[in-house]
Amino acid sequence: MAQALRIALAGLGTVGTGVINLLAENGALIARRAGRPIEIVAVSARDRQKDRGVDLSPYAWVDDMTELAGRDDVDVVVELVGGADGPALALARRSLSAGKALVTANKAMIAHHGMELAGLAEGAGAPLRFEAAVAGGIPVIKGLAEGAAANRIEAVHGILNGTCNYILTEMEATGRDFAEVLKDAQDLGYAEADPAFDIEGVDAAHKLAILASIGFGTQLAFDAVEITGITRIRAADIAQAAALGYVIRLIGVADCANGSSGTQRLFQRVAPCLVPRGHALAAVTGPTNAVVAKGNFSGPLLFEGAGAGDGPTASAVVADLVDIARSNVAPPLSLPVASLEAAIPADSGERVNRAYIRFVVADRPGVLAEIAAAMRDAGVSIESLIQQGRPEEGGEVLVAMVTHEGPESAVSRALDLLQGSPSLAEEPLVMRLIG
Amino acid sequence: MAQALRIALAGLGTVGTGVINLLAENGALIARRAGRPIEIVAVSARDRQKDRGVDLSPYAWVDDMTELAGRDDVDVVVELVGGADGPALALARRSLSAGKALVTANKAMIAHHGMELAGLAEGAGAPLRFEAAVAGGIPVIKGLAEGAAANRIEAVHGILNGTCNYILTEMEATGRDFAEVLKDAQDLGYAEADPAFDIEGVDAAHKLAILASIGFGTQLAFDAVEITGITRIRAADIAQAAALGYVIRLIGVADCANGSSGTQRLFQRVAPCLVPRGHALAAVTGPTNAVVAKGNFSGPLLFEGAGAGDGPTASAVVADLVDIARSNVAPPLSLPVASLEAAIPADSGERVNRAYIRFVVADRPGVLAEIAAAMRDAGVSIESLIQQGRPEEGGEVLVAMVTHEGPESAVSRALDLLQGSPSLAEEPLVMRLIG
Repeated sequence: MAQALRIALAGLGTVGTGVINLLAENGALIARRAGRPIEIVAVSARDRQKDRGVDLSPYAWVDDMTELAGRDDVDVVVELVGGADGPALALARRSLSAGKALVTANKAMIAHHGMELAGLAEGAGAPLRFEAAVAGGIPVIKGLAEGAAANRIEAVHGILNGTCNYILTEMEATGRDFAEVLKDAQDLGYAEADPAFDIEGVDAAHKLAILASIGFGTQLAFDAVEITGITRIRAADIAQAAALGYVIRLIGVADCANGSSGTQRLFQRVAPCLVPRGHALAAVTGPTNAVVAKGNFSGPLLFEGAGAGDGPTASAVVADLVDIARSNVAPPLSLPVASLEAAIPADSGERVNRAYIRFVVADRPGVLAEIAAAMRDAGVSIESLIQQGRPEEGGEVLVAMVTHEGPESAVSRALDLLQGSPSLAEEPLVMRLIG
Repeated sequence: MAQALRIALAGLGTVGTGVINLLAENGALIARRAGRPIEIVAVSARDRQKDRGVDLSPYAWVDDMTELAGRDDVDVVVELVGGADGPALALARRSLSAGKALVTANKAMIAHHGMELAGLAEGAGAPLRFEAAVAGGIPVIKGLAEGAAANRIEAVHGILNGTCNYILTEMEATGRDFAEVLKDAQDLGYAEADPAFDIEGVDAAHKLAILASIGFGTQLAFDAVEITGITRIRAADIAQAAALGYVIRLIGVADCANGSSGTQRLFQRVAPCLVPRGHALAAVTGPTNAVVAKGNFSGPLLFEGAGAGDGPTASAVVADLVDIARSNVAPPLSLPVASLEAAIPADSGERVNRAYIRFVVADRPGVLAEIAAAMRDAGVSIESLIQQGRPEEGGEVLVAMVTHEGPESAVSRALDLLQGSPSLAEEPLVMRLIG
């Protein structure tokens, strides 16, 4: 058998120990598939003494993880530290600059610095792979970059954050409110102690930006992703959606089209949406992830599976290692960095769809008339309107409506007209209907 | 840009012309992704004069398609002729023996001759790829062989024949009987004039055998697939299943486990099954295909999309060409042929599950008692029993039951006891419940 692919692991959290366990359990099979063994030679983490339930004695221990990049006995550095910047980025830069392959599960780092890192990788002729950065164990980067390579990808959408999907489907199943379910999710390990990146939609946006770049051949543009999280969704919204035949999911959507000037117009949004029951994404519950890529010849391709967890994430990390062992290495972002197109953010106001709009209003006469007048003046046509009978705590009343199909700019105009109105107890919540 | 990858197309039916159209429309994009253009240089089909709606004048025409294998100006032969043997097999053998890459959508040929062809390919160092042979445009072979490469695959199951799935979901939606819906499917182009391979389950079995070999690392064993088609399913069965909360789908299932002797026990079956509503495969309607692969670290991975059609199939064919252009070529069956394990067919009698059993019986006293006695004597425990009130034409009555969980051998024993009984108007129909 050919020479082993020698790897160094930086970061020994759940994913790092997952990789160790996976290579221990499936190592012989993987060696047959890859044509050569994959062997860990060195590891690095913050605390050498911590008991991780795995035997680290066979591996060289390195205190300063960036030193892994300089070791002659290492072919691939596996970065599982996390964080967009800091030690992870330093290690990635140094590894690629030294011509060493880099495999990472770090979505934040790739979303922010993927162009630079891909450039370094291409310059040094070193593979850079990050299957585990998007949708956990689901081979969706491979599915887009290779499986759908014959297609112009017209759109990508999906459920990209397991924490949010767990919370939303729990709210749906139990009727409980966001804060309560979040607390449970934290106790169960489905949400981090600091859940902001997940529940604010940032994590899903990292993944969406990566998928968009690979799918459309455009430059990574994380800063152009419109992001709305799930923190403002109430049990009452879930109930209203259910009454209308919908469930609520945090959906990442991206599409790309030629603008009139010939420049690509890139639309990227992460936001909670109403998904009709019976739609494939409505059936995605718990911490599962799912991605639909629409190719101009393949039609829609759906990829679904576990979006997180040590086993699935380790599976994706090691799939990248197998590809490197097999010398299956395309450009990191599917196309050479220099040939990725610069795209202009699309004007979301021109998008036409139906919207769910929920107001929290003071319980007094005339409020409904005020809202209805604003809708009329902005040209928003109301399909159905539900005013909750019983006031919430504090005498507030929820009013929810679904609009007919129309441009998003009209809804924005209506909400502008209502801006500052003493009738509204909080900013209206807008969610689009999909499917 | 590097030298073009030069291909020859054998077969100019819908898929062949689909490949021509795809390369015409997406050629520039594909050249960027593959690092070099993919160019058709020669074509061959039975009838040169036939109008296919595409301009063939840029390509050399070859009457005898096996000559494509000998052309110096061809790097890859694309076989889209079909048929397990005959000209397709001759072309495949000659191409690979000559060291030419072969891409094919021919599931029958791979299921029957895949081991021989993979051996030829490995011997000559020539790529052999067949993504389009399984599940149309869905990159499921890539998903298994590369995306899930870090896993021991424990089981594969899925909906692998779009014609059957279209017929079953049409029967479900309209309440009509099999023969009537088949006729419509033929008129609409969803079923062949000779539909036997599809509706008898053979086509799905070809695909299942290929997935099993790649997933489990076992030798291709098409002859060991247990096959039951959908021809005996009546509208009444669909209605009974619906009343119980199930839909009927033609499901391919394969799993592999170490037997007591250390030999792999391979189970492969294609048969109509009852799938609970809410299960991912119940939501797969029309000619869509879906495959679930369960990895020991990844957990279940679902791949879903169009299972047939010129666009999706061409998408899969050209994805293989892009991989070859990128020099991304692993062994055809994921592992070298010589290292694929010989597996013994698993004893299906030991499998434990619930079964739906439907009898067509004479409308006279004592029949139900006879059936119930046979079940009792064989140790089959009945969970629910539905006797249709109104006799069918000819005075026949349908009796359907669902058993409690038990070994399949017990059900077989019960049916053996009833064999030859004058009370039964036809062979009982058994379908397993999954999920």
